[in-house]
Amino acid sequence: MTRRDRALAVARDFGADAVLAAHVGTVAWLTGYAASIGTGPSPWALMPFAMLTPDGPPVLVVTEDEAAAAAATDCEVVTYPGYGIGPLDPVGGTIRALSAVVDGRLVATEPASIPAPVAARLELVDASRELGLARAVKDPDEIDKIRASVRVADAGQRAVRERAAAGMTELDAWAYVCGAMHAAAGSPIPSVADLVSGPSSQRWEGPPGRRELEDGDLIITDLSPLLSGYWADSCSTIAIGEPTSAARSAHARIRGRLERAVDAVRPGVIAGDLDALIREGLAYPHHSGHGIGTTYHEEPRIVPGWPTVLEPGMVLALEPGHYTEDLGVRLEWVVLVTDDGYEVLSRHLVDL
Amino acid sequence: MTRRDRALAVARDFGADAVLAAHVGTVAWLTGYAASIGTGPSPWALMPFAMLTPDGPPVLVVTEDEAAAAAATDCEVVTYPGYGIGPLDPVGGTIRALSAVVDGRLVATEPASIPAPVAARLELVDASRELGLARAVKDPDEIDKIRASVRVADAGQRAVRERAAAGMTELDAWAYVCGAMHAAAGSPIPSVADLVSGPSSQRWEGPPGRRELEDGDLIITDLSPLLSGYWADSCSTIAIGEPTSAARSAHARIRGRLERAVDAVRPGVIAGDLDALIREGLAYPHHSGHGIGTTYHEEPRIVPGWPTVLEPGMVLALEPGHYTEDLGVRLEWVVLVTDDGYEVLSRHLVDL
Repeated sequence: MTRRDRALAVARDFGADAVLAAHVGTVAWLTGYAASIGTGPSPWALMPFAMLTPDGPPVLVVTEDEAAAAAATDCEVVTYPGYGIGPLDPVGGTIRALSAVVDGRLVATEPASIPAPVAARLELVDASRELGLARAVKDPDEIDKIRASVRVADAGQRAVRERAAAGMTELDAWAYVCGAMHAAAGSPIPSVADLVSGPSSQRWEGPPGRRELEDGDLIITDLSPLLSGYWADSCSTIAIGEPTSAARSAHARIRGRLERAVDAVRPGVIAGDLDALIREGLAYPHHSGHGIGTTYHEEPRIVPGWPTVLEPGMVLALEPGHYTEDLGVRLEWVVLVTDDGYEVLSRHLVDL
Repeated sequence: MTRRDRALAVARDFGADAVLAAHVGTVAWLTGYAASIGTGPSPWALMPFAMLTPDGPPVLVVTEDEAAAAAATDCEVVTYPGYGIGPLDPVGGTIRALSAVVDGRLVATEPASIPAPVAARLELVDASRELGLARAVKDPDEIDKIRASVRVADAGQRAVRERAAAGMTELDAWAYVCGAMHAAAGSPIPSVADLVSGPSSQRWEGPPGRRELEDGDLIITDLSPLLSGYWADSCSTIAIGEPTSAARSAHARIRGRLERAVDAVRPGVIAGDLDALIREGLAYPHHSGHGIGTTYHEEPRIVPGWPTVLEPGMVLALEPGHYTEDLGVRLEWVVLVTDDGYEVLSRHLVDL
């Protein structure tokens, strides 16, 4: 079953014969069309929609500005006017384009991603949760895209390891990381990123700031770049100068825990059990991991008691951490669930 | 009249006694709370809402993760659970928090920015257009924020002028620009940006790519960073090595046009007339300018026939351009409409 088959099966379960993808990640998943998300709402465009029926490729609803990029997928493309020097009406344009595409059908969709005036014109059922679950198992072409995105994260991790040095600020280090990721991607790309430093890294997350790096600092660098609609993830903890013995010991413990976590990945494992294995004896305030794909945190969630069962084709980011008054360590790799075990997709170093 | 007074006047015109700000820019405008927009939809949060009534400061509805930042405004803050290791339900959380805040009142709001399941619980009237117009005139504290954001754009413009050189790629130049803007901002920030190069810059927009800069190239760098909820804007065109005489001539013409445009800014001028003055004899495919504030393109739009009349406190970005088979030039400054004329807020150079 391809992902389009799985999506249509979700629709049938709801008594609908069409899926209307509304979340930007679900649109990317069903169509390969990666809308721009890095600058908030546009004055002349809504986010794209994609309509999937059993009768052919999906139909993408986008602005005329996006038509060429949308046509590079295998989808049909229906447009409405986008940027221009006349009046702007993205809501009206979307409603008119979508009405023709949906044509009165009952659609299984994601209401939380639909602006109210657009939803008012649709007959819909809420299949958000089920579509989210259907996204968890990746098709081979999706895994290729995640591999490419992980290469971008690798490049960012290499940059912080090679460039971070005492006397520069967190933002100086970030400039190298950001430049390396954009160069690897071939374009500026969005990323979810933490870069926090200090001898006492009680902060386990946060953006880089003006703090100057000092000898003895640990730097937690967590990089999730978005490339061609697919997110990667990664985390390293490196030391500036000589780490303390406490830092060495904590790092070795978390590295061992990451390796134990990865080794436990195989089909049939329950997400909550994997969480327990990773979390045992540690007290980090976050998940032990999560699926990645066209959203940066998705199924399977690796959190206490979570019932999702691992299947081949799922892609997990696993990230044990340890944070005390004195230091913070987190390490993260991306892992593919294979037919009989796992493959680590990340190539960045997790040395201290 | 402060902006909160103007917003409440909009509500009264619709027979409502409250404004529910739903667009992230309107929330920033009424509250000073700048939500994160750079990474698309969050799995654990909806965008913030802000409820304004005549009886006190606005009430912000945000996740618990955002509570500290929201509390730094003068607003009341109502939260719902955000990131966590249990079940995530941002829609349910928003509905519960918002129901208590709205308390059955009729609200003047922006339906296109409200997810369908949230809107279904509200009594609302669509005041999107009127709130957009009310945002056009800035209060003094907003102008201070725009000045600060323009300083970030200035830093990015300085970086491309100082660093761009033959042999580096557009992305190499962008890494300096991006690093300079983040350093000036004190944090990574989103930006809407073009960086296009070539002897024949027929492309008037687009992201930086892997093209190598060569002697004789023109580079169009258009930078709109977002700082503390307020966008700036800016554009320069610089030459790598010796520009051709055609490039010098086109640049001089556009520079003269920018200066003529700025000199024409004063209260009472009709936006469409300003467009005609800037556009005369040129054939660029875009607006002549636009308002900026908590959105990157807003009222007054400087486009043909646009009826908005300039008022003191409006902030315009003016950007004449000239694009042929052989070359492309665009220059842009941000200008404040004052009581009797204008003040140029931009400080970046617009030399070739």
